[in-house]
Amino acid sequence: MPLDVTAKGVYVIAPTPFHPDGRIDEASLDRMTDFYLGAGCDGMTILGVMGEAPKLDGAESLELSRRIIRRAGKAGIIVGVTAPGFAAMRALAQGVMEAGAAGVMIAPPNHLRNDDAVVTYYHQAVEAIGADVPFVLQDYPQLFQVQMTPAVIRRIVMDLPSCVMLKHEDWPGLEKISALRRFQAEGSMRPLSILCGNGGIFLDFEMARGADGAMTGYAFPDMLVDLVRLSQAGEKERAHDLFDAHLPLIRYELQPGPGLAVRKYVLMRRGIIASDAQRRPGTALTATARAEVEYLLQRLARHDARAKLPALA
Amino acid sequence: MPLDVTAKGVYVIAPTPFHPDGRIDEASLDRMTDFYLGAGCDGMTILGVMGEAPKLDGAESLELSRRIIRRAGKAGIIVGVTAPGFAAMRALAQGVMEAGAAGVMIAPPNHLRNDDAVVTYYHQAVEAIGADVPFVLQDYPQLFQVQMTPAVIRRIVMDLPSCVMLKHEDWPGLEKISALRRFQAEGSMRPLSILCGNGGIFLDFEMARGADGAMTGYAFPDMLVDLVRLSQAGEKERAHDLFDAHLPLIRYELQPGPGLAVRKYVLMRRGIIASDAQRRPGTALTATARAEVEYLLQRLARHDARAKLPALA
Amino acid sequence: MPLDVTAKGVYVIAPTPFHPDGRIDEASLDRMTDFYLGAGCDGMTILGVMGEAPKLDGAESLELSRRIIRRAGKAGIIVGVTAPGFAAMRALAQGVMEAGAAGVMIAPPNHLRNDDAVVTYYHQAVEAIGADVPFVLQDYPQLFQVQMTPAVIRRIVMDLPSCVMLKHEDWPGLEKISALRRFQAEGSMRPLSILCGNGGIFLDFEMARGADGAMTGYAFPDMLVDLVRLSQAGEKERAHDLFDAHLPLIRYELQPGPGLAVRKYVLMRRGIIASDAQRRPGTALTATARAEVEYLLQRLARHDARAKLPALA
Amino acid sequence: MPLDVTAKGVYVIAPTPFHPDGRIDEASLDRMTDFYLGAGCDGMTILGVMGEAPKLDGAESLELSRRIIRRAGKAGIIVGVTAPGFAAMRALAQGVMEAGAAGVMIAPPNHLRNDDAVVTYYHQAVEAIGADVPFVLQDYPQLFQVQMTPAVIRRIVMDLPSCVMLKHEDWPGLEKISALRRFQAEGSMRPLSILCGNGGIFLDFEMARGADGAMTGYAFPDMLVDLVRLSQAGEKERAHDLFDAHLPLIRYELQPGPGLAVRKYVLMRRGIIASDAQRRPGTALTATARAEVEYLLQRLARHDARAKLPALA
Repeated sequence: MPLDVTAKGVYVIAPTPFHPDGRIDEASLDRMTDFYLGAGCDGMTILGVMGEAPKLDGAESLELSRRIIRRAGKAGIIVGVTAPGFAAMRALAQGVMEAGAAGVMIAPPNHLRNDDAVVTYYHQAVEAIGADVPFVLQDYPQLFQVQMTPAVIRRIVMDLPSCVMLKHEDWPGLEKISALRRFQAEGSMRPLSILCGNGGIFLDFEMARGADGAMTGYAFPDMLVDLVRLSQAGEKERAHDLFDAHLPLIRYELQPGPGLAVRKYVLMRRGIIASDAQRRPGTALTATARAEVEYLLQRLARHDARAKLPALA
Repeated sequence: MPLDVTAKGVYVIAPTPFHPDGRIDEASLDRMTDFYLGAGCDGMTILGVMGEAPKLDGAESLELSRRIIRRAGKAGIIVGVTAPGFAAMRALAQGVMEAGAAGVMIAPPNHLRNDDAVVTYYHQAVEAIGADVPFVLQDYPQLFQVQMTPAVIRRIVMDLPSCVMLKHEDWPGLEKISALRRFQAEGSMRPLSILCGNGGIFLDFEMARGADGAMTGYAFPDMLVDLVRLSQAGEKERAHDLFDAHLPLIRYELQPGPGLAVRKYVLMRRGIIASDAQRRPGTALTATARAEVEYLLQRLARHDARAKLPALA
Repeated sequence: MPLDVTAKGVYVIAPTPFHPDGRIDEASLDRMTDFYLGAGCDGMTILGVMGEAPKLDGAESLELSRRIIRRAGKAGIIVGVTAPGFAAMRALAQGVMEAGAAGVMIAPPNHLRNDDAVVTYYHQAVEAIGADVPFVLQDYPQLFQVQMTPAVIRRIVMDLPSCVMLKHEDWPGLEKISALRRFQAEGSMRPLSILCGNGGIFLDFEMARGADGAMTGYAFPDMLVDLVRLSQAGEKERAHDLFDAHLPLIRYELQPGPGLAVRKYVLMRRGIIASDAQRRPGTALTATARAEVEYLLQRLARHDARAKLPALA
Repeated sequence: MPLDVTAKGVYVIAPTPFHPDGRIDEASLDRMTDFYLGAGCDGMTILGVMGEAPKLDGAESLELSRRIIRRAGKAGIIVGVTAPGFAAMRALAQGVMEAGAAGVMIAPPNHLRNDDAVVTYYHQAVEAIGADVPFVLQDYPQLFQVQMTPAVIRRIVMDLPSCVMLKHEDWPGLEKISALRRFQAEGSMRPLSILCGNGGIFLDFEMARGADGAMTGYAFPDMLVDLVRLSQAGEKERAHDLFDAHLPLIRYELQPGPGLAVRKYVLMRRGIIASDAQRRPGTALTATARAEVEYLLQRLARHDARAKLPALA
């Protein structure tokens, strides 16, 4: 099923599990896929910034995408196809759409510094991948150095019908969500799915501002699922209680650089992937950092039983 | 007393209180100074990024510095003297040191992109302000776009005896603190005071990594004082419990852009400053954002009585 | 006379002459002013990027501006008032306008990365300096990292009547001049003076595209005056012949970093200023570079007698 | 023959010729290769910034490389393998080396902002492509925003024996060449081939500073060959005379953005490629710009008969 503007819930950002020697760990890939979907995620986003995509060559990217898509069944798989050139973007987009992906995600290159340049870029991207391929607009100024105002996002959405979702990770971004929903309410922008990233660190308020869910890879996506459901059910206090219990770890995992190492370490500790190895070049946790994560997990376990993990050997 | 490498505790980043019409609010300035020092802060840092310094002209900056220095008595006042040129930097540094400041803080200009350029800049800054003026090295790559490795910081510290303190706000920065303390332990770097910024969002772990305290402006600096003391006393669990209760608000206040509006709003709600006005151009909180802050304060009040505030009119 | 949209010709970017010990060299300042105006320049722009403005404190900037304005008589003096904050910008703008400046020049800060941010910045700047102060919009993306499309420039021009001139130094910028003149022709933008920078390296074609003249500091401003006059007189071939003779030196002087040292060296060799010293920190020419400049001057002298200089001692 | 540190002369940066419909024009590719080598170029650099490499997919890049390598015979072909990830870099590097390339060229990603980060990146790149693959270090700070001091270049050269050449296009860069040659003279750096880019706009002086030749794509590479030979033969005046005649066009072609369109247009006018088409998205010359190029060619033809072209239809 192609992605459309009604998408909501949690589309988890998936890491790529590797063996310590750098080979893709396919058993972990399957187990992780099963875990995510079993935990209630509505979809997965693969080959994103946190998926170590640039360390995979074209063939590996396509094969990994196919494996996950097959395993995921009806759940929607979104594939990051951001590339320095439109040829590589088109090649990967066509490959994964043929394999059954629900859509693709495209981040802007960091040299775009005026509104027309941003809008033009997305026109060119759609020309490259085809107007029939649903795409997610990734708005992550802290990382990509590209600023899209709500009005620029609206131009892209109104110009390009295949733009069906915003991966919202501007920071601060609460007012941006409100502004976009106002555009919809006043009729100047068509409906758009808005899923939030940034490790979930504002998800408690983002839902109330009008987001449709989360697209991030926090190592407790099952918590993100609960949080989105509680928010949608109007259980504000319970949603905040749950969120606040996780916030110290969310914050710790959000660190640029070591963040992926933290995420993979917790997923490994939870038994979801076999190893927290990153393909070279990668960032490893120091012993001190690992002890800090363990400490955070212990504190979290007082509030959320999912964080009760077997003792380290 | 000039600032030296033994400085520790909390040097709070002070905002500049304004009347709604844009004039400096001197009564609030005095009340705020009294509050900070009464709450146990060891010093204050003024005219920093969050002090709206660029909206003050030279005369105002100097007058405001003098007023706070006078009021603060023995507490150390550090003054931000970052400027696009060394002439302005020297003029302000000389003025505030004559007025009794403990030291100055200098951030690097954002065009420095190699190690020698960074080190050379600080040599030139010291030549401009005088080698007898103690200075704080501000390391804030997210904002200033300048990356200083631990080795670069060591070069600056070893080259320039008047560098007495690091305002540490790299993110992620835990390993940087550990690396610098290792340099000291192995004898390759002389002692250096390290105070942490970034709204305090990693202060729970930064203390254990070897930081000497905090230099940030979170609207509950009295909590920062408690946290630093608990950490120094080895009360790890209590420190984390206190920190975690505040983390949802710390996180909310850390937002670039609206962060200062949140901080001033909470300081106003606590009765510390009369108005949350910013001098133009400034960022105002929306009604929704204010409601979010009030909600966070109510939740915080369950754990920390200091957040119990009178109902809004 | 306040600057207005009819300004044309050459507004030379003036360096600040210093004695070798760093003091401002007032005799050279006067001689340089006389030379520029005697050579046919219609005005001067002072305290720009190449005027070492950040090395002057507020009092020096104002005093230097007053001296030049007084000396210049009826010629229009434009003063660069770009500053990290609006307080400093306002203070300098008011000071120099009271002293008789024709207008001020304002460059955008380098964090502006979307159209609204750029336009808003100039609204705020005009609020700071006053809507009655004519200002020059400086468009120099290579240095300031801010991209203004022709449409953004039009928004600023149409929103802000006090914007009377564009200092055009986008590179490449020929099509931008054409686009702006089309806006005028079609009636969507009011008239605007366009003077060109970038060391003059495209001035041969910029005039034909519709520029009104030059605002740059090439060490032969008398050549720029001739070139503008030849262009305006339709003497295309003679204009290009003159330009081409100077291009090797124009190119050499355009180098970021050593460029100012080259410019001051040639002005010194021409007897216009007494010393090529820069106030610290500055860039000095190596012996090899000086020899390269001398060689270029000798070659130029075959075509332009103004480059025939006394032999070096 | 693998590239080594004795390489000198002209390695021309080759564009990729396309048919107007976007297909690669293989006949033009062959004719262009023959022309370059017949004109005396010692080698070619393909798939560089100006080769529209990001618009080619992996298969096309490899096929085009093979065709040129085969055609070029003994001349050395260097292939740009810069990529956002090491997987893609390795795949292309291995493919072209197997096909007989002389070496590869690697530019740094623009997020590298301290010395260790730059050096580490090249270590990782060599680990990815293999230590036996000769590589060219591309130093182009204006485009890549990465600053490598001479000392950083020396670290890379001394750490990595497979670094055999510097593509020097820092601007200003004359002193950098001198500094590197001093390192060699004093014995702190091993020999290194230095070829210069930046459209050749400083080639007249770069040769005297110690460069070994040019690596740029100016549409008269036959002139670059002459200039390098004249310089090597000590014919300084004749070298400058030739250079100065071409400088107005060199300058015009150097414009970022339209520069490639100018280059392809002149190559088409010279009969070397059939069409100046760029694959989408590309930049086309306006009629005014074409007329400006024609005018520059006519003026050039007075000095250099190679610029005498048939009249336009």
